[in-house]
Amino acid sequence: MEFQYENSFEVKEKINQSKIAILPIGAVEAHGPHLPLGTDNLLAERLSQKLAERVNGFVLPTLPYGQVWSLRNFPGSINVSNESLISFLVDIGESLFNQGFRTFAMVNGHLGNQTALKEAARVLYETCPEMRVFYFFYPGMNKAAAEVRDKKSAHNAYFHACEIETSYMLYLAPEYVDMSKALSEDPIISMAADFTPTPWEEFTETAVLGDAKLATEDKGKYIVDIALENMVKMIDELKG
Amino acid sequence: MEFQYENSFEVKEKINQSKIAILPIGAVEAHGPHLPLGTDNLLAERLSQKLAERVNGFVLPTLPYGQVWSLRNFPGSINVSNESLISFLVDIGESLFNQGFRTFAMVNGHLGNQTALKEAARVLYETCPEMRVFYFFYPGMNKAAAEVRDKKSAHNAYFHACEIETSYMLYLAPEYVDMSKALSEDPIISMAADFTPTPWEEFTETAVLGDAKLATEDKGKYIVDIALENMVKMIDELKG
Amino acid sequence: MEFQYENSFEVKEKINQSKIAILPIGAVEAHGPHLPLGTDNLLAERLSQKLAERVNGFVLPTLPYGQVWSLRNFPGSINVSNESLISFLVDIGESLFNQGFRTFAMVNGHLGNQTALKEAARVLYETCPEMRVFYFFYPGMNKAAAEVRDKKSAHNAYFHACEIETSYMLYLAPEYVDMSKALSEDPIISMAADFTPTPWEEFTETAVLGDAKLATEDKGKYIVDIALENMVKMIDELKG
Amino acid sequence: MEFQYENSFEVKEKINQSKIAILPIGAVEAHGPHLPLGTDNLLAERLSQKLAERVNGFVLPTLPYGQVWSLRNFPGSINVSNESLISFLVDIGESLFNQGFRTFAMVNGHLGNQTALKEAARVLYETCPEMRVFYFFYPGMNKAAAEVRDKKSAHNAYFHACEIETSYMLYLAPEYVDMSKALSEDPIISMAADFTPTPWEEFTETAVLGDAKLATEDKGKYIVDIALENMVKMIDELKG
Amino acid sequence: MEFQYENSFEVKEKINQSKIAILPIGAVEAHGPHLPLGTDNLLAERLSQKLAERVNGFVLPTLPYGQVWSLRNFPGSINVSNESLISFLVDIGESLFNQGFRTFAMVNGHLGNQTALKEAARVLYETCPEMRVFYFFYPGMNKAAAEVRDKKSAHNAYFHACEIETSYMLYLAPEYVDMSKALSEDPIISMAADFTPTPWEEFTETAVLGDAKLATEDKGKYIVDIALENMVKMIDELKG
Amino acid sequence: MEFQYENSFEVKEKINQSKIAILPIGAVEAHGPHLPLGTDNLLAERLSQKLAERVNGFVLPTLPYGQVWSLRNFPGSINVSNESLISFLVDIGESLFNQGFRTFAMVNGHLGNQTALKEAARVLYETCPEMRVFYFFYPGMNKAAAEVRDKKSAHNAYFHACEIETSYMLYLAPEYVDMSKALSEDPIISMAADFTPTPWEEFTETAVLGDAKLATEDKGKYIVDIALENMVKMIDELKG
Repeated sequence: MEFQYENSFEVKEKINQSKIAILPIGAVEAHGPHLPLGTDNLLAERLSQKLAERVNGFVLPTLPYGQVWSLRNFPGSINVSNESLISFLVDIGESLFNQGFRTFAMVNGHLGNQTALKEAARVLYETCPEMRVFYFFYPGMNKAAAEVRDKKSAHNAYFHACEIETSYMLYLAPEYVDMSKALSEDPIISMAADFTPTPWEEFTETAVLGDAKLATEDKGKYIVDIALENMVKMIDELKG
Repeated sequence: MEFQYENSFEVKEKINQSKIAILPIGAVEAHGPHLPLGTDNLLAERLSQKLAERVNGFVLPTLPYGQVWSLRNFPGSINVSNESLISFLVDIGESLFNQGFRTFAMVNGHLGNQTALKEAARVLYETCPEMRVFYFFYPGMNKAAAEVRDKKSAHNAYFHACEIETSYMLYLAPEYVDMSKALSEDPIISMAADFTPTPWEEFTETAVLGDAKLATEDKGKYIVDIALENMVKMIDELKG
Repeated sequence: MEFQYENSFEVKEKINQSKIAILPIGAVEAHGPHLPLGTDNLLAERLSQKLAERVNGFVLPTLPYGQVWSLRNFPGSINVSNESLISFLVDIGESLFNQGFRTFAMVNGHLGNQTALKEAARVLYETCPEMRVFYFFYPGMNKAAAEVRDKKSAHNAYFHACEIETSYMLYLAPEYVDMSKALSEDPIISMAADFTPTPWEEFTETAVLGDAKLATEDKGKYIVDIALENMVKMIDELKG
Repeated sequence: MEFQYENSFEVKEKINQSKIAILPIGAVEAHGPHLPLGTDNLLAERLSQKLAERVNGFVLPTLPYGQVWSLRNFPGSINVSNESLISFLVDIGESLFNQGFRTFAMVNGHLGNQTALKEAARVLYETCPEMRVFYFFYPGMNKAAAEVRDKKSAHNAYFHACEIETSYMLYLAPEYVDMSKALSEDPIISMAADFTPTPWEEFTETAVLGDAKLATEDKGKYIVDIALENMVKMIDELKG
Repeated sequence: MEFQYENSFEVKEKINQSKIAILPIGAVEAHGPHLPLGTDNLLAERLSQKLAERVNGFVLPTLPYGQVWSLRNFPGSINVSNESLISFLVDIGESLFNQGFRTFAMVNGHLGNQTALKEAARVLYETCPEMRVFYFFYPGMNKAAAEVRDKKSAHNAYFHACEIETSYMLYLAPEYVDMSKALSEDPIISMAADFTPTPWEEFTETAVLGDAKLATEDKGKYIVDIALENMVKMIDELKG
Repeated sequence: MEFQYENSFEVKEKINQSKIAILPIGAVEAHGPHLPLGTDNLLAERLSQKLAERVNGFVLPTLPYGQVWSLRNFPGSINVSNESLISFLVDIGESLFNQGFRTFAMVNGHLGNQTALKEAARVLYETCPEMRVFYFFYPGMNKAAAEVRDKKSAHNAYFHACEIETSYMLYLAPEYVDMSKALSEDPIISMAADFTPTPWEEFTETAVLGDAKLATEDKGKYIVDIALENMVKMIDELKG
């Protein structure tokens, strides 16, 4: 169910039967030559739709701007501060609670948002204690990705426009991928990148953190489906 | 050009040739039984696409949440505060400026956002003085609507899910209109509604401020095309 | 009753009998050569006194600073931000509520304040739901002014130091008007002024938006008395 | 020169010749049965006028609301938070600087404002380093008051509606004093009042901190004239 | 009892028996050649320990940074804004209340902190009304110091690295004093320093406001013991 | 060099020779029965001292309060919000920059602080671009801990009062460890704890996340020395 295509006369009853709101949130950000700027939005949106079907939830309109401090100097990136993002999400969450929702699942397609989402969830934990708030970012993907990837990750937390993320796109939004432009990169990310502010132009010119050529729909499907299962399970177990 | 489908390798050059960013901004809000909650998003988005074609600008992803204080208690409405909205838009604007844009046109589909948009534009006027910022809300529509409407407006500034807005939808997004459910309402809005906080439940149960049955695609086209011409003209005359 | 000339020992009982607080709020702002910088303060104050007599309310001391972004670069203008103004007014409102007032009527003499006043009223709507808050700006004046004015308005919302506002002064504070200096101006305000930040120096050097020479006490009295009646009516109908 | 009675066409030249702006700031606050709620406003205003004459400065319109935390529960008190007050004053100060002023003297009639005034002055010290900002509160009064008072003060910093403040009023605004109602109080203020939040209802029912009956115009004149001399001297020595 | 050396399994019971938390707060700030930058931290800490023994309270870890606007340009000073300090202290206070404390005594070693401490205490007065909050700064020291000092103070409120503060150190933390470097200074502090922002470099190069050579342990003991008695008395009388 | 024991007359020259400031930051937080509440402070402080010796830096006074949302309901925990912490650290950082420091290394002993430290570092990246800011949290510990631990970690990111952290204490602050009270715990932390606000009382009563009995000084030394080497290396390579 796409929330914004519902009408006000019927939606109340439907909310009461579902009580689950799913917010796709991504970013506009450089993703190399083979993926569009809106990659994280597309992923979040498509994954949210799958999740909504499984848990009988509403998909809210995508919030298509996120915190992209690390890549803000790359062509096409649009950056929103943590503070603005937190405040915006808290407002949305409180409205959802007032509308009768008891589960608010943010499905995030962009790692950089995770800090703000977690903080927003904690604020809502105080103001709407009866609503369960999730800040999902491909739960379980680390293990799953390790199983299918052909090349070691460039960093233990970052993955970007690489074998993994491109695989997600080939599975969820293949019409936006141009594999003919896919690059194979091997950036050296120093340990210091974890402990001092490090814009990504310090270690990559392309924003591709790995070998995008190795991406396949199957790899994407494998990981994303696991993440989906995990989300379904958590919502079912904990829903408000 | 849809900004989020561009890629980072080519977008720089394109930005330099256009320098115009267009942000559709709407809301999720009750619009009676015949129009969807996302009406203002659909209108802002479609109108932005027309505008982008005319001025060779980029359409950014729609910001689909707005300030809906007045209707926040109606089923399906999601409300974001002026403060959150201002702060979010200022961040976007500053990023656009850093990316090389010199015109930032917000195309607004929801009257309630206008205060926040104007304030954000004033902040950007200080921080990015070389970028021209617009907060468009159907420029010229008052006169144009007066010419085509069959029934007097319920209020001198508000129009909502009525003859006029439904006409916009019949022109811009007819696939989301169900005219068979259109209502004819005649709410009495007291003068006090302009001078004291007045949630709309005080004067309407349906959120339809007029006779939606009188809506036609032609009326919508007449007004919207005038608004479009006005936006084109202002951008052309004042672009940074 | 002027609130600040009451004493603490007697005021409690009087508040309980009236419960109505009236706050004049204006601005210090350029008003051409024939009107003083404090024109909006004088108008707000005198109108508040008339209102207080009619509804048996207290006139609070005038808040003499407002948001004058548009004219801030003109000689003599003093500008306070919306944020500061909102926050200040909310504090005053909450104190008034604690003191026992149940109607808080802001009588505004300066259009630029209206955004902040409305926002402050909405905050108080949440924090002091039992107190009715008004943000009056000459209610009904548009229709009334249209009836008496000899020359068309330069803008559908702005009027400033012109036939109309000068008439108000001739009625309410004639001792501060020097009609021998009154100007007749005919500024062209482009449509863009409604949709992009536009300091007034872009269309006027004098800040006089019309023909001040046409001002008369009678015109002022006609409009202001209608506004006064409207305020009295709204307070009587809705008072807390 | 009263700033708000100047007009925009002539004021620029006058500002350039004076460069000194004087802001009276007071409060609306309980002052016993013999003094009005607006005592601090009246004192600040009248003292500002004397100061303006001496230094050829402009008197701005009085800011008549202040921080009255300690007395906020007394009938008639209106309290504004430090934060709101600071922010409001900083805005005014920055406007004055932009208008060409190089000395901004706040003449304060209410001790509770002093924290906010000092903080605002420090902010302006950063943002307008070329403007000298004063936060005057009867400079030199401690010594002078000790010389003329007949009864020991109830507290080493507070004086309120007492022998001293009533004397100020008898000198500066006698028409608002009703000596027939003056009280003689002898409140015991514990040391803890300086080290833990202590609303004044804990030690006084009247808000009169001493023997108001001992007030005379002469005492007031003696202290106030010394304060005036001190202000004149500081402005002359340090003006921007 | 030093709070941070307690363990979580036993501390609950101990809190319930004491209910008194003591927070030493100082600053890192220039104190001349004979005293260390952390003088105010050392004093606050040692005095807190004495106080804790007397009232059976817990000493919390020292908050070693404060507001040092006046001396921020001197070598070694670290300045924290009032806003940051207030917000930090309010958080600590609310946690202490949740942990079961009913008395929160801030023992301050740095005059510049006093504004922030008082404001934080007022916030806590609203949010934790059942907890008594103190902002102690050597209560009673003015009178006591006057009795023992050999040389007149340079200012009626400031004392710094001088006869008095050095005496405190000789009593409470003598191992950090190097009397061989003690200076005898005689700064002229103009009256204006109380009424306009005045960084101390305007009247001293050394930050020593008096004759540090006159300091003795006895003087320190005399004053500090009086302050200690006063704190004990206030806590005993008013504890929550 | 301990910064707060330096004096103002000599410190300038020393700062110029070192330019490196090291801030230990920890928390007051439940750490089971065998470790004190101030464990994170002790670890941060002792590790900072080792680091200072190696890089010839100054150790600043420990900031002993941190963000302990997850454990805030455990006896003895004191929680400071991210916002307060960020703001406080930014102030300290800006002061250090003004004092001449060009490397500001925060040595963090508490994982929960990491979000605030990173955000503060990003703010300073804008305001003090010439100063390098680190937010160290045992760099390289994950790999090193995996090599020495006898029992699998309860969580991929959290470690707390367990085999690892207790080993740190046995190496750095053994006098505060009571191994006779060490517990062996085996909490089940669900995947949801990473994606929805989850106070730790949901999965542990003791706050011990593992087998503290397995802790040894050698394990602690092995990991901590690696972390120390890593910090030294990063500072040397990147110092401002």
